[in-house]
Amino acid sequence: MSAYDEFNTHIGKINDLCCVLNLLTWDARTQMPEEGTVTRGHQISTVAGIAQEMFTNPKTLQMIEAAEKEVKGEPEDSYRVRAVRYAREHYEVARKIPVSLVTELNELKMISQTVWIEARKNDDFQSFAPYLEKMVKLQRGIAEGVGYSDHPYDALLVRYEPGMTAKRLKALFAELKAGLTPILERAKAYPEARHDFLTERLYPADRQKAFATDISRKFGYDFKRGKVDLTVHPFEISFTRQDVRITTRYDEKYAPQALFGLFHETGHALYEQGANPAITRTALATDLLDLYAVAGTSYGFHEAQSRMWENLVGRSQVFWNNHFPLLQSYFPDQLKDVDAEQFYRAVNRVKPSLIRTESDEVTYNFHIMIRVEIEMGLLDGSISIKELPEVWNAKYQEYLGVTPPNNRLGVLQDIHWSSGLFGSFCSYTLGNVVSAQLYEAALKQNLEIEPALAKGEYQPLLDWLTENVYRHGHAFLPDELLRRSTGSSLTVEPYFRYLNHKYEQLFPPKG
Amino acid sequence: MSAYDEFNTHIGKINDLCCVLNLLTWDARTQMPEEGTVTRGHQISTVAGIAQEMFTNPKTLQMIEAAEKEVKGEPEDSYRVRAVRYAREHYEVARKIPVSLVTELNELKMISQTVWIEARKNDDFQSFAPYLEKMVKLQRGIAEGVGYSDHPYDALLVRYEPGMTAKRLKALFAELKAGLTPILERAKAYPEARHDFLTERLYPADRQKAFATDISRKFGYDFKRGKVDLTVHPFEISFTRQDVRITTRYDEKYAPQALFGLFHETGHALYEQGANPAITRTALATDLLDLYAVAGTSYGFHEAQSRMWENLVGRSQVFWNNHFPLLQSYFPDQLKDVDAEQFYRAVNRVKPSLIRTESDEVTYNFHIMIRVEIEMGLLDGSISIKELPEVWNAKYQEYLGVTPPNNRLGVLQDIHWSSGLFGSFCSYTLGNVVSAQLYEAALKQNLEIEPALAKGEYQPLLDWLTENVYRHGHAFLPDELLRRSTGSSLTVEPYFRYLNHKYEQLFPPKG
Repeated sequence: MSAYDEFNTHIGKINDLCCVLNLLTWDARTQMPEEGTVTRGHQISTVAGIAQEMFTNPKTLQMIEAAEKEVKGEPEDSYRVRAVRYAREHYEVARKIPVSLVTELNELKMISQTVWIEARKNDDFQSFAPYLEKMVKLQRGIAEGVGYSDHPYDALLVRYEPGMTAKRLKALFAELKAGLTPILERAKAYPEARHDFLTERLYPADRQKAFATDISRKFGYDFKRGKVDLTVHPFEISFTRQDVRITTRYDEKYAPQALFGLFHETGHALYEQGANPAITRTALATDLLDLYAVAGTSYGFHEAQSRMWENLVGRSQVFWNNHFPLLQSYFPDQLKDVDAEQFYRAVNRVKPSLIRTESDEVTYNFHIMIRVEIEMGLLDGSISIKELPEVWNAKYQEYLGVTPPNNRLGVLQDIHWSSGLFGSFCSYTLGNVVSAQLYEAALKQNLEIEPALAKGEYQPLLDWLTENVYRHGHAFLPDELLRRSTGSSLTVEPYFRYLNHKYEQLFPPKG
Repeated sequence: MSAYDEFNTHIGKINDLCCVLNLLTWDARTQMPEEGTVTRGHQISTVAGIAQEMFTNPKTLQMIEAAEKEVKGEPEDSYRVRAVRYAREHYEVARKIPVSLVTELNELKMISQTVWIEARKNDDFQSFAPYLEKMVKLQRGIAEGVGYSDHPYDALLVRYEPGMTAKRLKALFAELKAGLTPILERAKAYPEARHDFLTERLYPADRQKAFATDISRKFGYDFKRGKVDLTVHPFEISFTRQDVRITTRYDEKYAPQALFGLFHETGHALYEQGANPAITRTALATDLLDLYAVAGTSYGFHEAQSRMWENLVGRSQVFWNNHFPLLQSYFPDQLKDVDAEQFYRAVNRVKPSLIRTESDEVTYNFHIMIRVEIEMGLLDGSISIKELPEVWNAKYQEYLGVTPPNNRLGVLQDIHWSSGLFGSFCSYTLGNVVSAQLYEAALKQNLEIEPALAKGEYQPLLDWLTENVYRHGHAFLPDELLRRSTGSSLTVEPYFRYLNHKYEQLFPPKG
């Protein structure tokens, strides 16, 4: 066996264990009977421990070094070279984080998630505060271990957005604020679109599912390698490209949640299903730091796909012109007095709100900025846990003009901090920005895409994305992948062109 | 950490991996999209390899030895003593089987199952024969490795029925033949019970499920620690006692399949759910040879529970007197001209048939004897693969008076041989015999059980079984557990008392 093959076989087994971890999680969230929790925790912990040991073992370094020698001189862009390089990068980060910190973090996550659930239910920030305090301290410890030159946040971003920094994010946010504020102001000047038919009529769950899976299929989701299940918190998860599942919940009193939720998860699934078969069970389909089977190169790039299929495609006028009749055929009574244009306007309302997950395309980014600014402040010590609710509420007033009446609808709304996901919030906004940049490039590079979309055909868009993004897995880091696919580094221009075009039509500038 | 704790922690992790293997299998059979097969195979193989290495590693032996020293002098029946002893026994067997044979067997299983599926579909024994030849050779190799004094079959029985031998089985079969033949002859002399309402009317699947799960719940299956899923081949599987799942399929044209199938799987599930919480994640809840998370002490003892709840309870007259009105409430049209007695007789027909899984309580054992006699013959060389179809058909004619018209309905009907399960068929018949022995003992020892059953209450029976059998896991081998719970070694007497009583009422001796 060659050195590369030995390396690749070893990583293949780690990938298998990551797929197993994903399955244990999927099952716990969609299938497991309620009293299975504790023993499932043991199972996850045992498999994660074995995978962690296999990856951080010094033998892995020897295999990486031997493989590096073997692939030296091979084409810079080849999957072999990239797989070894990527494994090396993750190995270097992983070995800088003390094992004791990882153990402590895993234990804290389990407890603090439980405490957070109770705290949110009871609107009791004080009970969660000490756990958040510990979590921030642990995150600082990890940042110190990994190392950074400018801001501790940079060291956490490595895990979710390799190449991104606090400084770059701050600059991006400044641009976003400047560009989004006028759109939001304009939207506020308009009366809300009619939407009684969305909030006052019942949409049976089975028909919601039927319509949304029809659309998923049209987008290109391969049901021979996927399925749709029921869950409380929707997500996408994969066990190699051969088995990529999505989940959703159905609110019969508010159908858009499940419809757009399924478009969103379909976008994630298309990324995973689009991976090149050649990278199956390789480093390029594995997050070796988080021990998570995933081919998407970063959280932001993944989110860009879900946002593209949910928003740029799924919330477009041309989409509803094409597919509203199908929706109407599933809900003839509910939509008998509604037309495509009214439906399009109803699902594109813009209105500042308190809850991130219920926000619209324009205000969503403000929810993210607030969180990221707070994370940075917690990490560099400029914000204390004690003053957190106050800071949160002040920022909501400043950016969105709304103030949470309690912490349940404020600082306690997200699971992320209790789960230790510091550094991941920015991915949602990066996803928005990247989705528009990719979409614009796709339409420019392949002139068949736009006419196809006009006819409700998605294969040309999917082909471009697969060819330029999906198939590569982790072969290229976000910045490199963006330049390769769009010819440009990260830029907000396409995003603003997209938003301005859409919202000038919905809310033409007055006077 | 004490030596025992170190041993127990190590085995706990192996149990976690066995639970993971069970989940990977459950998911593959009930959830996985069709194209997930190949990568799922890798995942199973990786986890099984790790679990195998963890158990057969010499360090495990050191831990067992250290734990043996520590528990020396503790009560003979204590779970600690038993866990160490059981692990030692399995370790001794496992280390006698060369790793190369295990690998070869696992690879052969995968291929030969696929070949068997095709062969059965095409009624083509010849295409399967070479794989069966290899399989028998491998099984002989395993038998030689494990060692035996009398018959190679004894070495294979260790895995499924520790303590059982070819010699004991032959004696048992002789007794069974002598006792069953007159019952079968008597049944043949009677006209078949009316059963048009079972074969000529449609029973919607959702109502079949509703009735069967009502009964499962009455039997005592805890749905907070279990659930019922859909599958092609029904089974029960667990991931600790906290999560014990059963599956079934529904034939709307023949409801008894799903109804009794679910009673059967519920019996298996009650065994697993009834394990003492103290043995969770210990050796006593783990088949360390097969790397399978299971608390039942042998295949036969497990089958005894499924048979007891399916047949002794679920096919009894008193059961249908109690619950036929409930069944009728789910199927008012289908059962409008049927009464409890007619239903009871219809689901207790006795008739020789070609297919094991469709056979009745009396003829079932003949199907098993045929298979076990053939397995013994294949192993000791007295039967060749070439003459197998002929031998099969001759035995069917001899024992049951029927001859398969083709191999699809004959020698190709079971998955077991392609899966390498040589030595496991006898468990079905042992299950029948043991179920009656346990049932009789329970009713004798606790006089509240029978009146409760007469009222459709199952808690007293379940309590007796849990106390005497279920809670112990692998602490006692089958023979010992039988003596402890019934005061007697394995005996066919209670089984014949049960059958004769039941079938003398159904088919009174004539003349």
